[in-house]
Amino acid sequence: MRTGIWLIGARGSVAVTATVGALALRARLVEPTGCVTESPALAPLLAAAGLAGWSDLVIGGHDVVPTPVLKKAEALGAAGVVPARLVAALAAELTAHEDDLRALPAGAAQADTAGLIAADVTAFRERHALDSVAVINVSTTEPAPPPHPAHADLASLRSALIREPVLPPSALAAYAAFSAGCGYVDFTPSTGARLPALHELALANGVPYAGNDGKTGETLVKSVLAPMFALRNLRVNTWSGINLLGGGDGANLADPAANAAKVASKQRVLSDVLGYQPQGTSRIDYVEDIGDFKTAWDLITFSGFLGTGMRVEFTWHGCDSALAAPLVLDLGRLTAAAQLAGRAGPLPELAFFFKDPLGSSSAGLTEQWTTLVDFARGLST
Amino acid sequence: MRTGIWLIGARGSVAVTATVGALALRARLVEPTGCVTESPALAPLLAAAGLAGWSDLVIGGHDVVPTPVLKKAEALGAAGVVPARLVAALAAELTAHEDDLRALPAGAAQADTAGLIAADVTAFRERHALDSVAVINVSTTEPAPPPHPAHADLASLRSALIREPVLPPSALAAYAAFSAGCGYVDFTPSTGARLPALHELALANGVPYAGNDGKTGETLVKSVLAPMFALRNLRVNTWSGINLLGGGDGANLADPAANAAKVASKQRVLSDVLGYQPQGTSRIDYVEDIGDFKTAWDLITFSGFLGTGMRVEFTWHGCDSALAAPLVLDLGRLTAAAQLAGRAGPLPELAFFFKDPLGSSSAGLTEQWTTLVDFARGLST
Amino acid sequence: MRTGIWLIGARGSVAVTATVGALALRARLVEPTGCVTESPALAPLLAAAGLAGWSDLVIGGHDVVPTPVLKKAEALGAAGVVPARLVAALAAELTAHEDDLRALPAGAAQADTAGLIAADVTAFRERHALDSVAVINVSTTEPAPPPHPAHADLASLRSALIREPVLPPSALAAYAAFSAGCGYVDFTPSTGARLPALHELALANGVPYAGNDGKTGETLVKSVLAPMFALRNLRVNTWSGINLLGGGDGANLADPAANAAKVASKQRVLSDVLGYQPQGTSRIDYVEDIGDFKTAWDLITFSGFLGTGMRVEFTWHGCDSALAAPLVLDLGRLTAAAQLAGRAGPLPELAFFFKDPLGSSSAGLTEQWTTLVDFARGLST
Amino acid sequence: MRTGIWLIGARGSVAVTATVGALALRARLVEPTGCVTESPALAPLLAAAGLAGWSDLVIGGHDVVPTPVLKKAEALGAAGVVPARLVAALAAELTAHEDDLRALPAGAAQADTAGLIAADVTAFRERHALDSVAVINVSTTEPAPPPHPAHADLASLRSALIREPVLPPSALAAYAAFSAGCGYVDFTPSTGARLPALHELALANGVPYAGNDGKTGETLVKSVLAPMFALRNLRVNTWSGINLLGGGDGANLADPAANAAKVASKQRVLSDVLGYQPQGTSRIDYVEDIGDFKTAWDLITFSGFLGTGMRVEFTWHGCDSALAAPLVLDLGRLTAAAQLAGRAGPLPELAFFFKDPLGSSSAGLTEQWTTLVDFARGLST
Ligand SMILES: NC(=O)c1ccc[n+]([C@@H]2O[C@H](COP(=O)([O-])OP(=O)(O)OC[C@H]3O[C@@H](n4cnc5c(N)ncnc54)[C@H](O)[C@@H]3O)[C@@H](O)[C@H]2O)c1
Ligand SMILES: NC(=O)c1ccc[n+]([C@@H]2O[C@H](COP(=O)([O-])OP(=O)(O)OC[C@H]3O[C@@H](n4cnc5c(N)ncnc54)[C@H](O)[C@@H]3O)[C@@H](O)[C@H]2O)c1
Ligand SMILES: NC(=O)c1ccc[n+]([C@@H]2O[C@H](COP(=O)([O-])OP(=O)(O)OC[C@H]3O[C@@H](n4cnc5c(N)ncnc54)[C@H](O)[C@@H]3O)[C@@H](O)[C@H]2O)c1
Ligand SMILES: NC(=O)c1ccc[n+]([C@@H]2O[C@H](COP(=O)([O-])OP(=O)(O)OC[C@H]3O[C@@H](n4cnc5c(N)ncnc54)[C@H](O)[C@@H]3O)[C@@H](O)[C@H]2O)c1
Ligand code: NA
Ligand code: NA
Repeated sequence: MRTGIWLIGARGSVAVTATVGALALRARLVEPTGCVTESPALAPLLAAAGLAGWSDLVIGGHDVVPTPVLKKAEALGAAGVVPARLVAALAAELTAHEDDLRALPAGAAQADTAGLIAADVTAFRERHALDSVAVINVSTTEPAPPPHPAHADLASLRSALIREPVLPPSALAAYAAFSAGCGYVDFTPSTGARLPALHELALANGVPYAGNDGKTGETLVKSVLAPMFALRNLRVNTWSGINLLGGGDGANLADPAANAAKVASKQRVLSDVLGYQPQGTSRIDYVEDIGDFKTAWDLITFSGFLGTGMRVEFTWHGCDSALAAPLVLDLGRLTAAAQLAGRAGPLPELAFFFKDPLGSSSAGLTEQWTTLVDFARGLST
Repeated sequence: MRTGIWLIGARGSVAVTATVGALALRARLVEPTGCVTESPALAPLLAAAGLAGWSDLVIGGHDVVPTPVLKKAEALGAAGVVPARLVAALAAELTAHEDDLRALPAGAAQADTAGLIAADVTAFRERHALDSVAVINVSTTEPAPPPHPAHADLASLRSALIREPVLPPSALAAYAAFSAGCGYVDFTPSTGARLPALHELALANGVPYAGNDGKTGETLVKSVLAPMFALRNLRVNTWSGINLLGGGDGANLADPAANAAKVASKQRVLSDVLGYQPQGTSRIDYVEDIGDFKTAWDLITFSGFLGTGMRVEFTWHGCDSALAAPLVLDLGRLTAAAQLAGRAGPLPELAFFFKDPLGSSSAGLTEQWTTLVDFARGLST
Repeated sequence: MRTGIWLIGARGSVAVTATVGALALRARLVEPTGCVTESPALAPLLAAAGLAGWSDLVIGGHDVVPTPVLKKAEALGAAGVVPARLVAALAAELTAHEDDLRALPAGAAQADTAGLIAADVTAFRERHALDSVAVINVSTTEPAPPPHPAHADLASLRSALIREPVLPPSALAAYAAFSAGCGYVDFTPSTGARLPALHELALANGVPYAGNDGKTGETLVKSVLAPMFALRNLRVNTWSGINLLGGGDGANLADPAANAAKVASKQRVLSDVLGYQPQGTSRIDYVEDIGDFKTAWDLITFSGFLGTGMRVEFTWHGCDSALAAPLVLDLGRLTAAAQLAGRAGPLPELAFFFKDPLGSSSAGLTEQWTTLVDFARGLST
Repeated sequence: MRTGIWLIGARGSVAVTATVGALALRARLVEPTGCVTESPALAPLLAAAGLAGWSDLVIGGHDVVPTPVLKKAEALGAAGVVPARLVAALAAELTAHEDDLRALPAGAAQADTAGLIAADVTAFRERHALDSVAVINVSTTEPAPPPHPAHADLASLRSALIREPVLPPSALAAYAAFSAGCGYVDFTPSTGARLPALHELALANGVPYAGNDGKTGETLVKSVLAPMFALRNLRVNTWSGINLLGGGDGANLADPAANAAKVASKQRVLSDVLGYQPQGTSRIDYVEDIGDFKTAWDLITFSGFLGTGMRVEFTWHGCDSALAAPLVLDLGRLTAAAQLAGRAGPLPELAFFFKDPLGSSSAGLTEQWTTLVDFARGLST
């Protein structure tokens, strides 16, 4: 199966790390550490399902800035996000990759813009003779958009798009992806495909979608630690956290509206797992000099037998883009495979990858894993 | 179902915390926080299986020291392990509880001692008209005993016990329990029932056994955090930890031989979950003044995509006895119920409770939970 | 020397902890741990200077709530802030202490209120035949007041006070203290004596003042850790922190205006010590269930030789009132002694005690200590 | 003033980091971050005292392994200890540096070996026309040697050195340095100059010496944090720590005897500052994969007012060689300057740099700083 991944935000940190990694994996320069689809438990099932191999995977995408990918990759190398020697070894491939990137087009009305986006994606699919393309949003997190009646159904949306801007960029990308017959994944907390009108379009065109917000750091730890308390019948009284990060994503999250979208998607796991919301909040602070190596600290206070109070704290020193990039490749390969297997509409089985998973009921990572394994098994049968 | 729990080490911290808790639960003075058998997912299944209610549960036991239980409970109250007001409210019950405690007997040969232990347990069962009694070892951790040929089968063991001391105290207690027709649980890393000769006796007498070493702190966290790395296909390079604790258990662990037994049982979870052993060790240091509120710190270094190095550390400020005591009550109720349901031999389904579970293949807490829920369902059918 | 301490906020956590402690010290029930004036290096100097002994120290004060001190002390005992057995032992003294507390009076104009406050303090001084009384503000942190021309000089202030409310409560208390011939200490980040008109009054009446904002937790650590980087010529790139606390003070700090006053006073130490302001902020989050045992976490990233990046983080689990209370007693005794030694105006030598010290140039704790020792030596000569 | 630094262990991590740094500073490629002698408060005093500038500083040394310095520097670059681009820029200089390195010589008796060492150092001094050379030991930490009567005075030592090996390598290096008329600094916890016979020789030859064991991580933090508790009259109950490190130094410390030497030198600061020894120990664990970026974690439990228990913990993620190297340059420049200023015997004024300072009474970092500033002032007058 030849698969394409079309990245919205293709010149950003996550995108370029994923691109460097995909090229390095194709050239057999590295092991697929961090790629969930390469886990011993999943890889054979997915091979049987015809998942795209590394040499059958092509990446393209849109961005709004012109930074050369090689230059961005070198910056990531200097920052220690990717090995500098890999970037040097792949310089030619990274330059060639520019051919598959496009500036985000802009039409007169949003309907026109969507058409131009869809055309770029379609051309990419044809140019590389791909069986399936998944569009993945890894662009800057948006503020939540104001509600609009046109979001409610496809007909209203179609007529509104001709008249006035009613969709935030992430949702317009989903609209364009669906129109082009592609699946769509939102790796960000932005709106993406989460509008009834877009759901209708996905079903109409027989394409799957997944999201939202890649689960890579503090929330990942929460999704295993919160079940520990629940299973042991311990009462979590407070769970407070702070995330300190720099980088492009951090700079954007310094904007209160984007920050709010992100923080909300970090909250869900606790009440989902525990059945109640402990006191405390999860903060995100932009600290430029911290760069890509985010530090998150969480304090959990809990009561045990007879009410005795106890505490756990953890500190996570993670490299966000290095954690996110392999998941982007996983999601692209899985969504493309799901589409070829005939899946349309939401893919709640991919909850394992997301902070705020679409239509999923289980927030514990291990249950999500079991669901993912079943999904992989289903693809191959 | 009327159930007895006979504690070896009945005047120690874990035992007395469990006793205060059982009395407080019977008197409906507290919620059953920390009791796994009272989780919403398990309680209905276990009620259907006839699990002993709090008013049907009686505690007795052996110890080698004469400290009054009330005095020990007051000390635990002063240290913040149990609420001082609970101890005050239950003073009469705690004093009455002395009637069910016995000094550990000593006969001429180990066979005689075992007979005396068994007689004390049998008398307790009859005095309280109990349907089933589980003997639980919560006494001081022993060094590993030297191997002895008499451990290999029951006939050899029986003749050896008349001649020479061949069993460490924990194994002698298991022998006595099985002889008295009782199940046996080892909450410590000591030998307990883990000898072929004792397995033979358990099967012969139709009684179940479980262990070893209650999973209450650092290892509990490991059993949820290690799967996170495994499921995400991240490579754990090093996992190092240190446990600082005072209290009676800590004092004993200052002895290198006991420490070695404990550290070994903390190691297993990582290689079991990850499939390889990361570098690093888990240390236990006795620091008297830290008392019952243990602090454990772990550093995990791991590699992500393209080999990028990252770190997590956690600090656990837990009260060991408050974490252990509800599990002791859980294990007593579950083992007694298993015996009445006809189970004999090891209970690997109780792996959820142990650092070094008997005959269990899965080291991840969530899988162990699923197994436990199935076990509970099985009991009621 | 017979000394009085008049507490504004006399029924709050800090005040009642200080009161319990002063009574316990007088009754010789405890050691003076945490009392700086009892350090081996200071105590002999201060004894020579005639500092009030524990039996020569009397506490009184104002508050706006009627909670009995004994009840508050019992609550602090239950929360582990003070030993419950001490509260029980001092119940009679704590009840008798009510005689020295007054509801905060309110006159028609602020000038009248100040007169009533001063009258209460004067009556206290006379009732107990005190040589000197220090008024210490340990009441709820106020938002910063709007600037007002009457703050600029004493004559304008005097005429304004008759007409309209121009002073926040902390400054009105300072005005009243000075009018009554008493020194004034602000243990909070509120305005207190920091207005030119009040400075003029202090000089006119020959009374000293000190402040602001007791240095008890994260900032205390900063005041020793920041010098470490400076002395080693290491470059601090970022210093970010979060304080999680419940209790009355925490609840008030949930109010953004009070929070802002507090956060500002936490910032000063870094730029003072380092000579530049690293990136990062210090946050305060109210988490009710955390109660009096605050947790603060700080991450510091710094560059060493050849720019190599490194990190330190610390977690502080402190009991704020237990840290603050002995300093309140120290400040009362020292300010009273300074007044008797003829000091008027600001006491920058007390910078050791404050986050945001008045008129002090050195922010490193050790230099502040040296200054304090010199001050103590000066008092006795 | 033209100054030489002769490093024992010249191909090790600390030595090569210092060498790269000295070359980079001479070439004005970097700022002198981490160099204490370049602090605003010290630099002018030292310039007045004629301290060697970066272009007047030459490095040479002995080692027992032949690893090329450039290769070692590249490995340090790959590990992130020094910037890889600096190593590339200085490749020619690092290769030329080989001319000043010698294999550690070995004579028939220790007296002969000392003569050969001294000859190498003397030749280095003459080759570069240096005013003064300081020999600095940055070689592998040794176990403590057995006591020997020849250590007691110079005459006995001289005759013993002809007969039998009586000195560990670090002490033999000190003997050779003194014989060659050079100062000696021990940056390790090894014996170095700490023998009466060597003290006698230093005085006889009019040369200064300093040590022991560079203070770069956990102990550095202790030397500022312990005074905080002392100054606030808080009682430290326990202080426990663990250091996890890989690298060459870490590998050697896995040897119990070397570990014991190191741990002992980490203990002194607490009892020196506090006046008592809290419970707890400081451990060092070798974890190969952690490499040069050591992590140290310390837990401090302390009592405040009325005995209320509190806790602080800190985690130090430091790069040992990057912390040590600038201090080695500082010590070389300062010791050479001290010699030219006529100082002979121990230099307790350099306690600021050491875990286990020679002949120093004050263990607090700030007091040590004040002493260092006075020392610098004294040099220039
Ligand atoms: N890294 C992680 O661990 C992680 C986890 C979950 C979610 N995310 C999300 O992934 C996204 C990308 O993160 P990043 O660190 O790569 O950020 P980044 O700032 O480095 O990259 C974002 C890219 O999107 C581009 N962009 C902005 N608006 C666009 C638009 N309308 N159309 C096309 N491109 C646009 C930007 O020019 C930039 O190149 C963020 O929204 C982040 O919140 C990241
Ligand atoms: N608390 C936890 O979280 C936890 C977790 C896992 C295992 N454990 C284990 O549980 C055990 C009990 O811990 P604790 O904190 O209560 O210790 P403890 O020292 O307070 O109590 C042990 C008791 O056992 C008694 N004892 C010693 N030898 C005996 C013997 N031969 N027969 C009968 N009694 C004997 C002692 O007198 C003492 O009263 C320890 O082995 C500990 O390692 C505890
Ligand atoms: N605890 C610490 O470590 C610490 C450190 C620095 C500063 N402080 C400051 O000390 C103050 C007291 O802290 P706390 O924890 O005791 O708070 P608290 O809320 O327990 O007590 C404050 C008391 O002040 C009273 N009060 C409010 N307004 C008043 C007024 N106008 N006049 C008289 N009384 C008034 C309240 O009724 C209450 O009893 C706070 O401002 C806090 O920010 C505390
Ligand atoms: N890095 C720090 O922060 C720090 C702090 C205090 C002390 N120290 C000490 O500094 C020393 C050097 O540390 P490192 O990390 O560079 O270690 P390293 O292992 O990288 O280097 C030691 C070097 O010494 C050489 N050597 C061994 N024996 C020798 C001998 N007899 N004569 C000459 N050379 C010999 C080795 O071949 C090696 O090249 C260690 O003793 C360490 O404990 C380091
Ligand atoms: Na930490
Ligand atoms: Na921590």
